[in-house]
Amino acid sequence: MAIHQHVLNLVELCARKGIRQAIISPGSRSAPITLALARHPNMTTRAIADERSAGFIALGMAQQLRQPVILVCTSGSAVYNLAPAVAEAFFQEIPLLILTADRPKDWTHQQDGQTIYQTEIFGKHVKRSFELPADFEHADARWFAERATNEAVDLARTEPFGPVHINIPLREPLYPTVDERLGYGPVRIIEQLKSASALPAETWHQLQNEWETADRKLIAIGQGPHDPALLAVLKKISDEWRIPIVGDVISNVPRNQEFITQSDVFLSLSDEKIKEKLKPDLLITCGQSFISKQFKLFLRAHQPESHWQIQPHNRLADPFQSLTRLIPYEPTVFFEKLFSDIDYQRFVSNDEDEADTGFQETWQKLDRQATRLVRQFLKDDAVFHEWAVIQRILDALPVDSQLHVANSMPVRYVNLCGLDENQQIEVFANRGTSGIDGCLSTAVGAALTTEKPVTALIGDVAFFYDRNALWNNLIPANLRIIVLNNHSGNIFRIIDGPSRQPELDAYFETEQPLSAENTAKDAGLTYRKVTSYQELEAALPGFFVGEWAGLLEIETDKMTNAAQFQAYKALIQKTFNAD
Amino acid sequence: MAIHQHVLNLVELCARKGIRQAIISPGSRSAPITLALARHPNMTTRAIADERSAGFIALGMAQQLRQPVILVCTSGSAVYNLAPAVAEAFFQEIPLLILTADRPKDWTHQQDGQTIYQTEIFGKHVKRSFELPADFEHADARWFAERATNEAVDLARTEPFGPVHINIPLREPLYPTVDERLGYGPVRIIEQLKSASALPAETWHQLQNEWETADRKLIAIGQGPHDPALLAVLKKISDEWRIPIVGDVISNVPRNQEFITQSDVFLSLSDEKIKEKLKPDLLITCGQSFISKQFKLFLRAHQPESHWQIQPHNRLADPFQSLTRLIPYEPTVFFEKLFSDIDYQRFVSNDEDEADTGFQETWQKLDRQATRLVRQFLKDDAVFHEWAVIQRILDALPVDSQLHVANSMPVRYVNLCGLDENQQIEVFANRGTSGIDGCLSTAVGAALTTEKPVTALIGDVAFFYDRNALWNNLIPANLRIIVLNNHSGNIFRIIDGPSRQPELDAYFETEQPLSAENTAKDAGLTYRKVTSYQELEAALPGFFVGEWAGLLEIETDKMTNAAQFQAYKALIQKTFNAD
Repeated sequence: MAIHQHVLNLVELCARKGIRQAIISPGSRSAPITLALARHPNMTTRAIADERSAGFIALGMAQQLRQPVILVCTSGSAVYNLAPAVAEAFFQEIPLLILTADRPKDWTHQQDGQTIYQTEIFGKHVKRSFELPADFEHADARWFAERATNEAVDLARTEPFGPVHINIPLREPLYPTVDERLGYGPVRIIEQLKSASALPAETWHQLQNEWETADRKLIAIGQGPHDPALLAVLKKISDEWRIPIVGDVISNVPRNQEFITQSDVFLSLSDEKIKEKLKPDLLITCGQSFISKQFKLFLRAHQPESHWQIQPHNRLADPFQSLTRLIPYEPTVFFEKLFSDIDYQRFVSNDEDEADTGFQETWQKLDRQATRLVRQFLKDDAVFHEWAVIQRILDALPVDSQLHVANSMPVRYVNLCGLDENQQIEVFANRGTSGIDGCLSTAVGAALTTEKPVTALIGDVAFFYDRNALWNNLIPANLRIIVLNNHSGNIFRIIDGPSRQPELDAYFETEQPLSAENTAKDAGLTYRKVTSYQELEAALPGFFVGEWAGLLEIETDKMTNAAQFQAYKALIQKTFNAD
Repeated sequence: MAIHQHVLNLVELCARKGIRQAIISPGSRSAPITLALARHPNMTTRAIADERSAGFIALGMAQQLRQPVILVCTSGSAVYNLAPAVAEAFFQEIPLLILTADRPKDWTHQQDGQTIYQTEIFGKHVKRSFELPADFEHADARWFAERATNEAVDLARTEPFGPVHINIPLREPLYPTVDERLGYGPVRIIEQLKSASALPAETWHQLQNEWETADRKLIAIGQGPHDPALLAVLKKISDEWRIPIVGDVISNVPRNQEFITQSDVFLSLSDEKIKEKLKPDLLITCGQSFISKQFKLFLRAHQPESHWQIQPHNRLADPFQSLTRLIPYEPTVFFEKLFSDIDYQRFVSNDEDEADTGFQETWQKLDRQATRLVRQFLKDDAVFHEWAVIQRILDALPVDSQLHVANSMPVRYVNLCGLDENQQIEVFANRGTSGIDGCLSTAVGAALTTEKPVTALIGDVAFFYDRNALWNNLIPANLRIIVLNNHSGNIFRIIDGPSRQPELDAYFETEQPLSAENTAKDAGLTYRKVTSYQELEAALPGFFVGEWAGLLEIETDKMTNAAQFQAYKALIQKTFNAD
């Protein structure tokens, strides 16, 4: 009897609960899971050999779908290769359902192949880890497996979204014989209803009071997908109440006349008097992490009296060391209610808006100045360097497309450039753990899932680290990869500490000689390399056209890149501190 | 003050305790560890960008040195990329000292970059996980750090050897200023003395009794390095007492007139009468895992009355489901004492050896028959197939060299071939977890550490999975890589279950189209490809000559390989069951 009915039922339950996608790495212990998924009429399954890449491809898909994607691997160290993606999914709050095959627990540490300690192997980096029994004679075992699957799927897509693990020990035989047919179900669905959070009227009243007593209010948006409804209410608040709205490029708050997107540029100024003028009394935040180190340092040093974080769950993070209220509420709904309540209040009390409009002006003026400064700085075509290359790439991106920016230098550069609202670019980056280990695979997963053009902007170290992203037969035609090749971990020369050490070359920047050409050719991508602005301008327009995946490699000099960044920092200090 | 004195002292302690080698992956949080190691006069440090590969390179080094190698990475998902190597080191019992930089615990899960839950992150796959404090104002903190380092180093090299983890949270600033000088020590060494295990005379007496009452005794050696002293005593036992000694290729028990090395061939016969004749009364084992599935199945089905496992520690594994005594003793010393004690006993009692010599003969006869059969089968040059290719490679290996065999098919093929004693080949394979994830990196680490020629024999899937093994500037001239490219996970077509499934191609064997040529060229290796026996015979002699690393790619057809394996299985059944 090689029918593992509980595995078939697990897959049926997932399908009935709306999961449609699975990424599978080949293996023998996992065969019952693989077969159950591959033969299910409502599942789309894809095979990826390297589990590390498979994990991030599933993550890239789930990032787009905002639904759990199933991730399957066999027993043994294969499971550990999923761990980098699992950690990123946990901190980036991406739903994944990880199904790991295991030997029955009787066989752990018995010198038999591909057996490790898989129980709760992902530690605190999954929302929960279930482990199914290996034997199902007792009815309670079947009840548990069904109940656990129901819970696992819903837990992955309950705020905060995240990975959930089911470890599945399986006894041999693993493969059905020729005459055994796999049959799914029947299964019992336990539907988890969604409730919306509500605050008592008294609490709203307190919040309104605190709002009204704060002179200088600042709203800042952390990482999150493009959210038109949120942007609409933020725009209203910015327009009508003159409150500065700060975002950075991964928060998908685009640059327009209102929003402040260049804080990482102008907050690197050192003039304390200006910083005092920028300090809010009340800070309101939502979303996940911020990329702007300057913004974080500024707030930690110039703390608001009150800081509200609005988010649909209770997990407490305090990145500015200033949080005073955690408000469990869907941010858009919160801002809309706040706006209408206060608007109504003012209408009733015939109150004029007495906000300090100068506060927003100060932020906006600096933001515009920073935008001009960066634009001007990068326009200079005397020197070919990476940051200026990135600005030209951003200018050439297809309208209404996706940009996946890799860690660590590309995402910082892109944030310093900003993106205009009319470009309609949605930006993604693995900022949950900020690793370089799966940036390319994540973009591949996204490209497999969206119809839009997907551009992956990535440095050479992150590219080669994750080059197995391209070691499969799935690379979709809407994927474009731009490799910024300075043959090193250039960031270590650009940031302050390591650049002073004699070990910089050998242990930090660590030169790597490869060109992406062979990897591109192995993967069947069209390949082009440029080393000057002229070549870049010639290559860019055609690069985004056509129904085939392509790789553009841009080679720059690491010393020049670092020197240009130094020049920029000097310019900032001169410009803003002379204000 | 950017001097992290406790990190400097930790490195000084490691050096004073004899650790000399460190593998470092670049990172900023880990900078204090990197600098302390790089500037220490007695440490050799190497930089590897991909932590997954770095882990296995360190493992390959420690496998040679039988001393802990230090493995350093920065905070965040980098740590998880070490996990596959850590698990392999744990189950293969290789000493590693893993130093992971961390943010101070205050900052965990606060939306700040590269911060994950690193406390005890490797779970049960390290012998112990220490975590240093971030602050050292209190003298007890310094006492703890010093004591923990002392313990960690010695724990890694106490039987069973294995990985030990020290998590090191570090506060900024991370880099010394230009005028700050790093000074090591003074440190307090806590020396752990080694004791040898001894059994009470009464226990020895019991063992001797059990020995004498067992008619048919079998000694089987699991995975372990080449051990001349062990082989010498085993040879004596085999010669004088007519006891069959079984090993397989990873146990480094070579093929000679005495030893039984082809059990995986002849135990696949199905004649129960023959198997009954092979069944021991007393089984004595030492070493780690066995590769021969047939040997394991045979013993599980034909259990000895007594089974002693001799090993220098108390961790209980029972892979044949037959263990009756776990004897904590160094195997060579045990066998020598057993031999001399029983020899003396017999001399005193003027006892003739009444052992069943026919038992050894039965084993040896089948072994010789199997050797001839395989040799004959592989000699046929009508069809070009992988297994026969491997036999020719083994015949051509340099005398007194190392062979690193990858999972999963190559190590099985090599075991079926066997290696002659006069070839003096030491065989290594990652059979702790039997993963494909770091086989090439392990060979690179070994080649960096031994003067001998190192040949890595690896299939295409394992090769590309771990191709970042070659993404560094360290590839030594004594490394030779042989890629057996059948463009798939061919094992799934060869083993029984998946080959019957309609999903074989898409989800198990999963074709991959790459040639190793581009990867070889990127890594600066000499490259040659062969597709026939003639080309192979022409290429092999020159391949092992010369002071440069090389890669030989051998392309075979997956269908032919599978068909040949089927033919072999039919031949076995015909040959042995007609006996």
